[in-house]
Amino acid sequence: MTTLAVDSVPHGFRGAILDFVGDPFYGAIEDCVRYWPDGLLVVAAGRVVACGAYDDLQGEFPNLDITAYPHRLLMPGFIDTHIHFPQMTMMAAYGEQLLAWLERYTFPIEAQFKDPAFARPMADRFLTELLRHGTTTALVLAAVFPESAEVLFEAAAARNLRLIAGKVMMDRNAPDYLLDTATDSYADSRRLIETWHKRGRLLYAVTPRFAVTSTPEQLSLAGKLLQEFPDVYLHTHLSENVDEVALVKATYPDHDGYLDVYDRAGLVGDRSIFAHGVQLTEAEFARLSEAGAAIAFCPSSNLFLGSGCFPIEKAKSTITPIKVGLGSDVGAGTSFSILQTAQDAYKVAQLRRQKLSAFQGLFLATLGGARALNLEAHIGNFLPGKEADFVVLDPCATPALALRHPNSLAQNHPVGTVAPDLETVADLAFALMLLGDDRAITATYILGELAYDQSA
Amino acid sequence: MTTLAVDSVPHGFRGAILDFVGDPFYGAIEDCVRYWPDGLLVVAAGRVVACGAYDDLQGEFPNLDITAYPHRLLMPGFIDTHIHFPQMTMMAAYGEQLLAWLERYTFPIEAQFKDPAFARPMADRFLTELLRHGTTTALVLAAVFPESAEVLFEAAAARNLRLIAGKVMMDRNAPDYLLDTATDSYADSRRLIETWHKRGRLLYAVTPRFAVTSTPEQLSLAGKLLQEFPDVYLHTHLSENVDEVALVKATYPDHDGYLDVYDRAGLVGDRSIFAHGVQLTEAEFARLSEAGAAIAFCPSSNLFLGSGCFPIEKAKSTITPIKVGLGSDVGAGTSFSILQTAQDAYKVAQLRRQKLSAFQGLFLATLGGARALNLEAHIGNFLPGKEADFVVLDPCATPALALRHPNSLAQNHPVGTVAPDLETVADLAFALMLLGDDRAITATYILGELAYDQSA
Repeated sequence: MTTLAVDSVPHGFRGAILDFVGDPFYGAIEDCVRYWPDGLLVVAAGRVVACGAYDDLQGEFPNLDITAYPHRLLMPGFIDTHIHFPQMTMMAAYGEQLLAWLERYTFPIEAQFKDPAFARPMADRFLTELLRHGTTTALVLAAVFPESAEVLFEAAAARNLRLIAGKVMMDRNAPDYLLDTATDSYADSRRLIETWHKRGRLLYAVTPRFAVTSTPEQLSLAGKLLQEFPDVYLHTHLSENVDEVALVKATYPDHDGYLDVYDRAGLVGDRSIFAHGVQLTEAEFARLSEAGAAIAFCPSSNLFLGSGCFPIEKAKSTITPIKVGLGSDVGAGTSFSILQTAQDAYKVAQLRRQKLSAFQGLFLATLGGARALNLEAHIGNFLPGKEADFVVLDPCATPALALRHPNSLAQNHPVGTVAPDLETVADLAFALMLLGDDRAITATYILGELAYDQSA
Repeated sequence: MTTLAVDSVPHGFRGAILDFVGDPFYGAIEDCVRYWPDGLLVVAAGRVVACGAYDDLQGEFPNLDITAYPHRLLMPGFIDTHIHFPQMTMMAAYGEQLLAWLERYTFPIEAQFKDPAFARPMADRFLTELLRHGTTTALVLAAVFPESAEVLFEAAAARNLRLIAGKVMMDRNAPDYLLDTATDSYADSRRLIETWHKRGRLLYAVTPRFAVTSTPEQLSLAGKLLQEFPDVYLHTHLSENVDEVALVKATYPDHDGYLDVYDRAGLVGDRSIFAHGVQLTEAEFARLSEAGAAIAFCPSSNLFLGSGCFPIEKAKSTITPIKVGLGSDVGAGTSFSILQTAQDAYKVAQLRRQKLSAFQGLFLATLGGARALNLEAHIGNFLPGKEADFVVLDPCATPALALRHPNSLAQNHPVGTVAPDLETVADLAFALMLLGDDRAITATYILGELAYDQSA
């Protein structure tokens, strides 16, 4: 896989186009969602030049070379705010909740990723799976071994991906073969930051696994890294499962709860992303809101491990607003697909008697994820200047989807009418969110270049 | 579609074979599960003649014509114990819980099925979807219109399916265009029973929609039908959602709860299948157990509508044992796939801190469903004499499944080794249950004849 050439001559993509310019959890739909039934996305040098109605824009670009996607919906690439690279081979491991699942399945599997000869081809397969599912940016945990982060960054660099990753830091309460030391984890993370952070589109996340598997010294050194490199990220787990919260309390008896462990180490800021948060207290919601930190909502994983139902309405309240993205959390999540993840987000919301609309779900999958990762200046929608990472969705990809949208099978429009208006596309998008999976991803583009083509 | 010929010359199917001869919720795995890594299923005249290890059986059938399925797992066909034919076009309808969902989406859609010209091709597509997902027997609600049951029986007869269905009875609390009357519903159901019940493999279920949409008179006439035709089924909904239970209480203030409404009408017996049961009381569990009635567990639907988490451990207790099958409950369920339904059953169990093993889940999908429908004498496993409805599963159907089972990709065994032993196949079956969908169905056989072929 070589570095992709990025064409500086404008190129157009024509199809139905949907993106978000505001948060539909707060604003009026019309102010947050943009939809063009027959849209044109113009890209040059890997960035969005213009996006709008085909009829309005085509005159501005008279000799534009256009790729037409009739009967397809173009959206910004999906953003996965929490996923484990070394767990890609262990989805659907039976019968345990979080802590036993880690011991029985996860730790032995992660040990394989010490060997670059094993990990390197896996990194390539991992990124292939992301693109095949329409995910163009992810916040990724590597294994504890610096090599596992190296091979992932190498593979992502070769594909020009905007990826955030970090080597896991863990210096206690795990098998010896998976432990680093506080000082080694500091030195290794530092070296990785110096090598990979802001190299091309890549970014680094300081990644202590979770409070229980780090000594206070290691957490403190993680905090030191954040001070030394103020634009790297902090990525860890928080309040996923009842037993885990109890274990953190027992491990840190002098702290005021789980979040406080991270807070005292200087790990809670506006570039911190905490996965899960299912068991958060009201005070912790308030503290995350105040700090500008983000939560990666991982409903598929939370169901699979029986961790519980994240109260998204609290994170999306006006009292304690918190940035939220969706996380597949593979291998505890049961799909790489952010659409399937959003399906489970809907189910989790319904169990709490909350409604999660298609626009809310797809906002989380795109602009919401970009905001959670502080990347709104670069990705998340089709505003001019944004990096042109996008997906081409097939609203009739499976018989169940086609049954749901018989009208979209009509072939008599020059570029195909996916849905004529916002109300209709809301319904179609909801069906995609509930019934769609990798089969609904016709193509994935990175910086305007074709990076995955289902028909190939 | 013409009636399939059923060949009386024995034919063999070779592959890994898994079935159940006991209930793994109670018995030891070794007593309940049969697994042959290299198995042979011998079929003649549509029935199982023998099933066992290829090496043991092949000598008994020296000139046997064999269809080989290397790298594939053969299992008894899946059984869907609760699904709505007229809801196949309305999966993923947004934003409501049960009662509002019925009013806003379901009732208008079901009105379309009055016209046989519309309903007839839909019946064919419906059965195609069942077979495409590996479902060989289903307990189906038609619409209120007798025509909708007619076309479904006609289509199922043409495919030789063992299908149980019934016209819905509903004479109040729904839009006028969907209402029958108590006497009409009695007469129509009676005529359908006389025409279709036990015609070939078809069976009839008396199908009052639920307590709220039937008058006491209609329920009483449903009970009369059960007395007049003691081998027909009773199929209805029970205790799905908190608001629904409250509405039943308000509608029947003199009754002792939801189940009692059916009980007093003579509808609770050992041929009664009640969908959901999420909100059942202890006393109702005891009464269902005593009556020998069955529950259709519909986890995907229960999540989608936010109805709650069915406590399967109570139905599978030794105190109040109840027959249980899985129901997709399309269109509130989010997939026709019984594998996907079992995935959601696992998630629901995990939320209750219960474990649902692959063998338990696949038992529910096959022999458990057959027992719930009192059809164990005919279907559900590969004992000699059983009707030869079966599925051919691909344990590496998707990249996620293949990543989970790299060993099963080995090509060096003459018929392919899916898994060498019970422990390994348990793990493989769990991955199929969690990650599998229609793509995992290589082929579906009805009475030993190929009825669906993914490669065709």
